[in-house]
Amino acid sequence: MSIMARPHGRTAFFVSDHTGITIEMLGHSLLRQFENLPFTEITLPYLDTAEKALAVVAQINERAISDGVRPLVLSTFVNPEIRSIFNSANGLHLDCFNTFIVPLEAELGVRSSHAVGLSHRVGDGMDYRQRIEAVRYTLEHDDGVSQKNWQQADIILVGVSRSGKTPTCLYLALQYGIYAANYPLTPEDFSYRRLPSELESLRTRLFGFTTDPLRLHQIRNERKPDSKYSSLENCRYEVHEAEALMHQEGIPYLDATNKSIEELATAVLHQAKMERRIY
Amino acid sequence: MSIMARPHGRTAFFVSDHTGITIEMLGHSLLRQFENLPFTEITLPYLDTAEKALAVVAQINERAISDGVRPLVLSTFVNPEIRSIFNSANGLHLDCFNTFIVPLEAELGVRSSHAVGLSHRVGDGMDYRQRIEAVRYTLEHDDGVSQKNWQQADIILVGVSRSGKTPTCLYLALQYGIYAANYPLTPEDFSYRRLPSELESLRTRLFGFTTDPLRLHQIRNERKPDSKYSSLENCRYEVHEAEALMHQEGIPYLDATNKSIEELATAVLHQAKMERRIY
Repeated sequence: MSIMARPHGRTAFFVSDHTGITIEMLGHSLLRQFENLPFTEITLPYLDTAEKALAVVAQINERAISDGVRPLVLSTFVNPEIRSIFNSANGLHLDCFNTFIVPLEAELGVRSSHAVGLSHRVGDGMDYRQRIEAVRYTLEHDDGVSQKNWQQADIILVGVSRSGKTPTCLYLALQYGIYAANYPLTPEDFSYRRLPSELESLRTRLFGFTTDPLRLHQIRNERKPDSKYSSLENCRYEVHEAEALMHQEGIPYLDATNKSIEELATAVLHQAKMERRIY
Repeated sequence: MSIMARPHGRTAFFVSDHTGITIEMLGHSLLRQFENLPFTEITLPYLDTAEKALAVVAQINERAISDGVRPLVLSTFVNPEIRSIFNSANGLHLDCFNTFIVPLEAELGVRSSHAVGLSHRVGDGMDYRQRIEAVRYTLEHDDGVSQKNWQQADIILVGVSRSGKTPTCLYLALQYGIYAANYPLTPEDFSYRRLPSELESLRTRLFGFTTDPLRLHQIRNERKPDSKYSSLENCRYEVHEAEALMHQEGIPYLDATNKSIEELATAVLHQAKMERRIY
C-alpha cells in the first residue's frame, strides 16, 4: 500500500498548555517564510493534562500517516512533563518556550517558575481595567459620533471613510490600552478646506490614513455598490482632497493600502511616538 | 567609579525588522516566568536598516553600563545582516526567528524566503475584508443594540452587564474574523425567567460569562458609584439569576473573573468549538 501525500502538504500543529496565542503567532510567522509550501495549520490550546497531550500525540501520528510526511509540531509548554510527551510524537517538535527559558535561566542565575497562565496580562489588575476603559472610550468615539470628550484621546485618526481607522483604533485600545478616537474626513470638510474647529486645538494628536483610490473604490463598492460614494471618480476626489488637507494642516499620515490591522496599529504607535498605557 | 544597578533590574529589548508584535508577545511570556525579577521591557520595531540597528546597539550598550548588567535582547529578524549586527551588542541576544528557521529549513528541504513583512495577514486579501466585516458586524451587534441580524452571528455572548462580553467580542472579530454579537442579561430577563424569544431559536450559538459578584461590584462602582446598579447586593442578585437562567436554558458558560481578554476569547473559541474564519 502506498500512501499519497495530501495536496495540502504538511500539517503544522501549534500546541500549548495555555491559550496558544503566542505559538500560533510565532509559528504562523515562521511558516510564512516558506511561501511556496502549502501547510495545514492546526492550533490546539489548553493541553494541560497528560491525557489531553497523549490524545494529540495520537492525532499527530495519524496525520503523519495520512499526509505521508511527519508533521511540524511547534509548542509553548510551561509544564516540562507535558512538553516531554510531545517528544514521542512522529513529528519535528520545536518547543519555543524551553529553547529560550534554558539560556535565560543561565543568564539570570535563577530557575523560572514553570507556572502556566502567567504569559498574558492578568485580569485582576489595572491593566485589565485600562484596556476595558480604552475600549469603551474608543467605541464611544468611533467615526466622530460623539465629540464630547476628544480631550481625553491619546490619538485621533483621520482619513476618508473606509480607510481602516476603526479596526486600527480598536486594536490600539485592546492591545495597548490607548484611547483612540477617529474622525472621518468627508466632502463637507473638503468644501471648507479646513479641519473642524474642535480638532484644530488637538492638532498634535491627529494622525492620518490615506489609501489607494482604486482599492477604496473596491472596498466601498462591496458595501454600497454603484453609488456616488463608491464610484472611482469620487474615491479619487476624496483621497486627493484628504491628502491635500492633511498636508495643509501638517498632519502626519501613512498609506494604509494593503497593510494589515497589526501593521497599521504598530506603525501609528511607532510613527506618532505614542506612550502605550499597558504592556 | 562604581556603577549601581538600577532598581528596575534588567532591561529587555524586544527588537524586530517588522512590527515586533510576535517577539514582544513571546518575550513578555518568557520573562513572566521569572516572577520575582523586575524587568524594564522596551520594544523597538521596524529596525530595517543597518543604521537603525547600529543606533539600537549603542542604546543597548549604554543600558548595560547604566544598569550595571547586560540587557536581554530578544529578536525576530528576517534579514540576516540586521540580525548579525545585534550579535555585537553587549547583551544576551536570542534570535527567536533564526533559531527555528534553521531546523525548519532542514526538515522541509528548502530555504526560507527571508522576506520581511510576510508574518502578518496581508491587507489585500479576503482575510482583511473578513476581519473588517466581522468588526463591523460586532460593533453593530454590541450590547444587544441592534437585533436585526442575529442570524448572521457565529456566536452570541450572554452575561450580566460589565462581565467582559464587549472586549471579548471585539477580540474574536479582530483576531479570528468571527461575527460575535452579545446580549446583556438584565433584571428584566430575570423577571421573565426565560430568554427573549429572538434568542430561543439561536440557542446553539449562545455562550455565557459569569463573574464574581464582589469583582463585578468593584468594576461597576468605578463607572456608577453608589448606585443600585453597582451595589454588592444587586451584583449578587444579578449573577445568581444569570447563572440560574443559563443553567435552566442549557447555555454553556465560564467564569470570566480575573481572566484576560485573550484568555476569554481563546476559551470561548475552544469551548464553543467554533470555526474561525481567518487564520
